Amino acid sequence: MKKVLFATSALVLSAGFASAEVALSGDGRMGIIYDGNDAQFSSRARVRFNLSGESDAGLSFGASFRVDHENYSSNAYRSAARGTAGAIWISGTYGKLSMGDTVSASERAIGDLYEVGYTDGTFGGDVEEISYLTGDGENLGQGPNILYEYTINNISLYASASDGVNTPWFDTPGDTTDTDADGNPVDSADVAWSVAGKYEAENWWVALGYGKHDDAKEVVLGGEGTFNGFSVKGIFAKYDDRFTGGADAEELKHTYGLGLAYQWDAILLEGFYRKDKFDYEVADSESYDSFGIGAEYDLGGGAILAGGIVDTDYLDDTVADFGIKFSF
Amino acid sequence: MKKVLFATSALVLSAGFASAEVALSGDGRMGIIYDGNDAQFSSRARVRFNLSGESDAGLSFGASFRVDHENYSSNAYRSAARGTAGAIWISGTYGKLSMGDTVSASERAIGDLYEVGYTDGTFGGDVEEISYLTGDGENLGQGPNILYEYTINNISLYASASDGVNTPWFDTPGDTTDTDADGNPVDSADVAWSVAGKYEAENWWVALGYGKHDDAKEVVLGGEGTFNGFSVKGIFAKYDDRFTGGADAEELKHTYGLGLAYQWDAILLEGFYRKDKFDYEVADSESYDSFGIGAEYDLGGGAILAGGIVDTDYLDDTVADFGIKFSF
Amino acid sequence: MKKVLFATSALVLSAGFASAEVALSGDGRMGIIYDGNDAQFSSRARVRFNLSGESDAGLSFGASFRVDHENYSSNAYRSAARGTAGAIWISGTYGKLSMGDTVSASERAIGDLYEVGYTDGTFGGDVEEISYLTGDGENLGQGPNILYEYTINNISLYASASDGVNTPWFDTPGDTTDTDADGNPVDSADVAWSVAGKYEAENWWVALGYGKHDDAKEVVLGGEGTFNGFSVKGIFAKYDDRFTGGADAEELKHTYGLGLAYQWDAILLEGFYRKDKFDYEVADSESYDSFGIGAEYDLGGGAILAGGIVDTDYLDDTVADFGIKFSF
Repeated sequence: MKKVLFATSALVLSAGFASAEVALSGDGRMGIIYDGNDAQFSSRARVRFNLSGESDAGLSFGASFRVDHENYSSNAYRSAARGTAGAIWISGTYGKLSMGDTVSASERAIGDLYEVGYTDGTFGGDVEEISYLTGDGENLGQGPNILYEYTINNISLYASASDGVNTPWFDTPGDTTDTDADGNPVDSADVAWSVAGKYEAENWWVALGYGKHDDAKEVVLGGEGTFNGFSVKGIFAKYDDRFTGGADAEELKHTYGLGLAYQWDAILLEGFYRKDKFDYEVADSESYDSFGIGAEYDLGGGAILAGGIVDTDYLDDTVADFGIKFSF
Repeated sequence: MKKVLFATSALVLSAGFASAEVALSGDGRMGIIYDGNDAQFSSRARVRFNLSGESDAGLSFGASFRVDHENYSSNAYRSAARGTAGAIWISGTYGKLSMGDTVSASERAIGDLYEVGYTDGTFGGDVEEISYLTGDGENLGQGPNILYEYTINNISLYASASDGVNTPWFDTPGDTTDTDADGNPVDSADVAWSVAGKYEAENWWVALGYGKHDDAKEVVLGGEGTFNGFSVKGIFAKYDDRFTGGADAEELKHTYGLGLAYQWDAILLEGFYRKDKFDYEVADSESYDSFGIGAEYDLGGGAILAGGIVDTDYLDDTVADFGIKFSF
Repeated sequence: MKKVLFATSALVLSAGFASAEVALSGDGRMGIIYDGNDAQFSSRARVRFNLSGESDAGLSFGASFRVDHENYSSNAYRSAARGTAGAIWISGTYGKLSMGDTVSASERAIGDLYEVGYTDGTFGGDVEEISYLTGDGENLGQGPNILYEYTINNISLYASASDGVNTPWFDTPGDTTDTDADGNPVDSADVAWSVAGKYEAENWWVALGYGKHDDAKEVVLGGEGTFNGFSVKGIFAKYDDRFTGGADAEELKHTYGLGLAYQWDAILLEGFYRKDKFDYEVADSESYDSFGIGAEYDLGGGAILAGGIVDTDYLDDTVADFGIKFSF
């Protein structure tokens, strides 16, 4: 009873018309990470599946996930076939609706600071990433999230949510296995949601996002401008009741972040500064500072030579990387 | 000493001749499952590799498996690289021989009832699926299965078997780790086999299948007819010594199943009814009834809007789904 | 700030110019393994991603890994996304540099004996493979390895190394979890390295390789000649302080190997003999003999009928396989 449409990118493209297809892209990198004590080789290669199609009425739809997004048996929370990695979407004049391991509305509108180094910040623990409260793997104990995006003229509106259910259901993972002292599941069954708005002019934008999960809240304000090759991006995030667990009851209060970049022909210079303030129940408040600086040289054809240095209170050491990254 | 032929779908197709190739297809879905208590988001995206080639003498060969069919380290019984997921085949005038996670002869000839909902029945525990005794993951403790198919005029003959060996051997999984009280492996080393025949007319078919593993037997009779957009399918399966384990020694005696569908332009209505009769050693016999009903609207281009409701004694609740499914 | 280049093989090829692309190739096999006691079905299907690109200045780069090389969660040492499976490389007039699960310099120059059977030797435990000291999965506890290759006229030079660091670092695996009685990590943090040279004439070559890790050393000498369809390959490997662990303190002293092959139209006959000598601390020295013989018939189009027999002291039985293998 099922009509299955088999279409491959090659077949479709050689026939010269647009239809449902599966296309491939890839990325890779190779180089050296200095971990504060030793220099280590670090490399990777990945392939991404890009699925796309269009209905008769002109609705676009698609999905995207990587090979390493499939861990069906070993990790139900990192599986595109379970809705917990990658995402699938439908898009039309009414906007775009995504489901899966989507980012939150706040993160979609504002994003992170600039990534440095050939490992795009991984060598430093990705401290350029702002800690958004919901989405992007934060509350996958409830299974897939949704993200809705709508743009009219210069204004974009975003809304995202989890389903508020942490019970598993056949192909939909849920996490009720860990329980607290009272036998209640540790994983929250409250809806985790976020809304955001963004105003985009020709070479600058500002955005405001709000997120909520249980008692925790976030307000994130961000903006970016680009002129004569210079880019500057600022992010301020304020959190309420955002405890990062542990006996010490560490509470993240707020984060300031600033990113700077300068592009000159094939050369890109980038840097960021970030300050996170924590309160402790049993101690005074404390600030964590993180700096990063990097340089890239575009070799063309998808190859970029890059190196970076990160100094952060989250690590005991100043760390660095140098290598080459590829897009295929 | 090895001549390796590297060929990609794109290279081959652009050159305009048929040869060994790897093509891609995909599927995805997004929507909401009502699990009887809560509504949950459920989405997925998958990609399938379709390998095909032809020998100089005109033998066709190929293989097919999905990205999520690879779990080399985490699950040896769900790995295309170990012969326990997907399948590989060779086909010519003498018929088609498949090896891997194949369906049994009975299942190949008769199949299941109609799938409803955007999750193709998964939201209801796939109760539209008939419980075949062998193949399709039933006896993977012996490694790959084989399926042979031969069609002459309107008659198709099918035969399938496991190898009757449950000891592992390098890349061929086997399962002798779990032992009973006497130290014997729980997993059976008897050949699990099935034979089936099918007669196909223009708009109807009937088929009969037989399966055997250890003392357990199945006889399955099925038929389907299509006229003026209506389809009706009936399946009757009788089992002998088919115990589904547990202290209660539940024995599946027989299953009746009926499927109905009506296609009208882009609209498809589907439903099924199924009754499974069990005997218990310590109690009276009991019947499990399952109903399913669904509707689909084909948006074209590979997108189908679909919803379904399933009421089954296997679940405590009436469950439903609604969403959109895609083919790429 | 990131310029991401999305390119697929189909798009690029249809446009008729060379650029970064992701291409696919595949392989598969189906047949029967006789394990000394029983005949077992054994099949598999695999797909390989072949990524390639070129910088503006003409540097080639690429990467290659299979679907089953991704086990991100279940096995960090078999993951292309962690640099412990497959490899990534850059190549130019200065030579080729690879990083990942590369072979050692010795292995790259000399290789193994001839594979027999439709499972390419797997049915016999791959005893045609010479036991190289470093690379190719031998010291992945330190993460990725590197391999450098340079060819000038008839001479090729090879060098390979691990990074000598077995501490994990975000995406770079390390293995310091297993410790000995003194609490030191069992996994060595000494650099594992190898160098090799090869002289290639028109129809013969000779090569010499040296490898070192901790106190263990290897010297490997190999050569191969082909004339009138006959091929002969000889390998001699001598090891120092190469203990293969266990209470018995088994020490591998040296390996002799000889391969013979004859190609006649579509028919290929192959065989190998190998002797490994071990010393035991608590017993006399002992030799392990291994024989293998195989025949192949090329059906064309990527399909090869093949069978092999292996008799080795490493297994208690004489084993055999027969089946068909495919390239896609």
